[in-house]
Amino acid sequence: MTLPTTALQLRSTVQPDATLTVHLESVPVPTPGPDEVLIQVQATPINPSDIGLLFGAGNLAALTVAGTADRPVVTAPIPERAMPAMAGRLGQSLPVGNEGAGRVVAAGASPAAQALLGKTVAVIGGAMYAQYRAMPASQCLALPADATAADGASCFVNPLTALGMVETMKREGHTALVHTAAASNLGQMLNKICQKDGIALVNIVRKPEQAALLRGIGAQHVCDTSAPSFMADLTDALAATGATIAFDATGGGTLAGQILQGMEAAINRNAKEYSRYGSAVHKQVYLYGMLDTRPTEITRSFGMAWGIGGWLLFPFLQKIGPQAAQALRERVAAELKTTFASHYARTVSLAEALQADTIAYYTARNTGAKVLIDPSR
Amino acid sequence: MTLPTTALQLRSTVQPDATLTVHLESVPVPTPGPDEVLIQVQATPINPSDIGLLFGAGNLAALTVAGTADRPVVTAPIPERAMPAMAGRLGQSLPVGNEGAGRVVAAGASPAAQALLGKTVAVIGGAMYAQYRAMPASQCLALPADATAADGASCFVNPLTALGMVETMKREGHTALVHTAAASNLGQMLNKICQKDGIALVNIVRKPEQAALLRGIGAQHVCDTSAPSFMADLTDALAATGATIAFDATGGGTLAGQILQGMEAAINRNAKEYSRYGSAVHKQVYLYGMLDTRPTEITRSFGMAWGIGGWLLFPFLQKIGPQAAQALRERVAAELKTTFASHYARTVSLAEALQADTIAYYTARNTGAKVLIDPSR
Repeated sequence: MTLPTTALQLRSTVQPDATLTVHLESVPVPTPGPDEVLIQVQATPINPSDIGLLFGAGNLAALTVAGTADRPVVTAPIPERAMPAMAGRLGQSLPVGNEGAGRVVAAGASPAAQALLGKTVAVIGGAMYAQYRAMPASQCLALPADATAADGASCFVNPLTALGMVETMKREGHTALVHTAAASNLGQMLNKICQKDGIALVNIVRKPEQAALLRGIGAQHVCDTSAPSFMADLTDALAATGATIAFDATGGGTLAGQILQGMEAAINRNAKEYSRYGSAVHKQVYLYGMLDTRPTEITRSFGMAWGIGGWLLFPFLQKIGPQAAQALRERVAAELKTTFASHYARTVSLAEALQADTIAYYTARNTGAKVLIDPSR
Repeated sequence: MTLPTTALQLRSTVQPDATLTVHLESVPVPTPGPDEVLIQVQATPINPSDIGLLFGAGNLAALTVAGTADRPVVTAPIPERAMPAMAGRLGQSLPVGNEGAGRVVAAGASPAAQALLGKTVAVIGGAMYAQYRAMPASQCLALPADATAADGASCFVNPLTALGMVETMKREGHTALVHTAAASNLGQMLNKICQKDGIALVNIVRKPEQAALLRGIGAQHVCDTSAPSFMADLTDALAATGATIAFDATGGGTLAGQILQGMEAAINRNAKEYSRYGSAVHKQVYLYGMLDTRPTEITRSFGMAWGIGGWLLFPFLQKIGPQAAQALRERVAAELKTTFASHYARTVSLAEALQADTIAYYTARNTGAKVLIDPSR
């Protein structure tokens, strides 16, 4: 096939005048090195972890879209107080897009690269919101013959995060876990993993319809923060499962503290005598997301054996080492169309991804509102 | 010598009608078992860690003292919302007092117990706010011949906590540390340890006179939260020392989050490129006290590599094991009158400890206002 010499790549820039711009840049199509392949990107998801880089601290309520339909230019003001945190990326035109999949349309001379020519591969390399992306052959996951690029587009971030939670639970000596924003794509995946592996999971959601969705896929323990009985329901579920570790996607507000409080109450149901320092059982909440941007507020009423901290996929994979990480990747490939299947509400082109209504849709981060970009459209 | 058959012991009780009472109970003087000694308690400090058990959730502003001068009875109402947390101790008459020292006035038949007869020993056994206390000989620390009971009264909680902080710092891979409420007895001790061992320490205080006190004993890095330049001072000190672990005695409010923010800013001064997830350097704050009872409020602006959690001496000693714990105890004994010397503002009898003005004095937890009880008075 004949390749174009230039193609589109999405770029996000924090300008020194405290505005954020997102546009499509025409960049040279790279020539793959000896050990590299050139991927025509056909499917790349908009994950919560992408939105941070995409829109930075831009005020989306004041967003405007100029340019043309094919080459939109998004502009949003950045509040002055948020600018110090943006200092590190000031004036840099940054590519976006953690993961994606597509067809290998050119390959370097090495046997490993040549072996991938014509295949559909998935990668996690950044800069995936682009029509073409060169990547080392060693970093490509060749998809099964019956899998499309869309099937493999999200096969790293969510699947490895869900598996990483279960792995962290085991490595830190817990036997059951809690997950918030549990009706998300990731949350549904975690339910499938836990059901398959026989691990008790407490799902926390914020709406009755999300609870119904999870019960519909077999979830046993679902607690709805909007229910007046939430704390009692949560404590019951924690007592029933013995969960002493939680992964919280919301980050802000009182939820992390409430989970620790519920864990302590569940543990104390069986306590033999009064301990002024609370139970000796370590209770842990990891914040892995920022859906709630308010400060985290912790009312310390659960003794002294507790921890709250950040959790991130890449440092976790580094910590467990290449062999253990590879084992997780192999499980994802083996269960790509079952346990790790992703669902998208819409598929859009690069230009459509920058239209105001589409942006409003995916930045609302509603359950089931996941968007896939197909840059080849 | 002739021992009395009964003696006084301080007791704290949460009554079912939501009042707290503290009184002196006349209890039989125990006869030591074969491996035990009987200690006439002569010095036992009122530590922050004792005040929680002593007054529970009682409202000290509404405290009343009845009874006689010799046998006062303190009563304080407990707010209804605090009663669930008190459920475990409801109606139980609990002895108080973590640590103390005194003379061994009787001993069991075993050689180890007999060897301590007539000696001044220190113990950490609970129930030390009493005129007599029986303890296993193996748990007694015989003080050097030139040390009084007052010299040894505080030789466990504060010294082992300060050494435990340094030990935790090393075991978790940090090279310098931060301490809040740094002008406390414990904080001054930590300064002496760090100066002796060549470890950089960032001291956080809340008043200029506390900063002056610490500089007077040789502290190099002192940051005052009441100074307008606090965050800048803190960030400079963190950059100068490379401290990435903190021990916070206050617990509530925004301080723990500010320390993490300062650490991240200090690390990023040398950052080479923008990382959307913040620095990869793990930043840790342990809350070991509750001086500030407000909720802990964390504005998450320091990336994802961070943790906040409870820290408590006894689980720490269990975790490091008996050999490592013994090594810490031996250092305390060796440096009892230098590094680990404690200072008291007042020495009171058991009955005086329950007078309204004395209670107001030591529950204010002001710097330098530490009180020692001498139950033999």
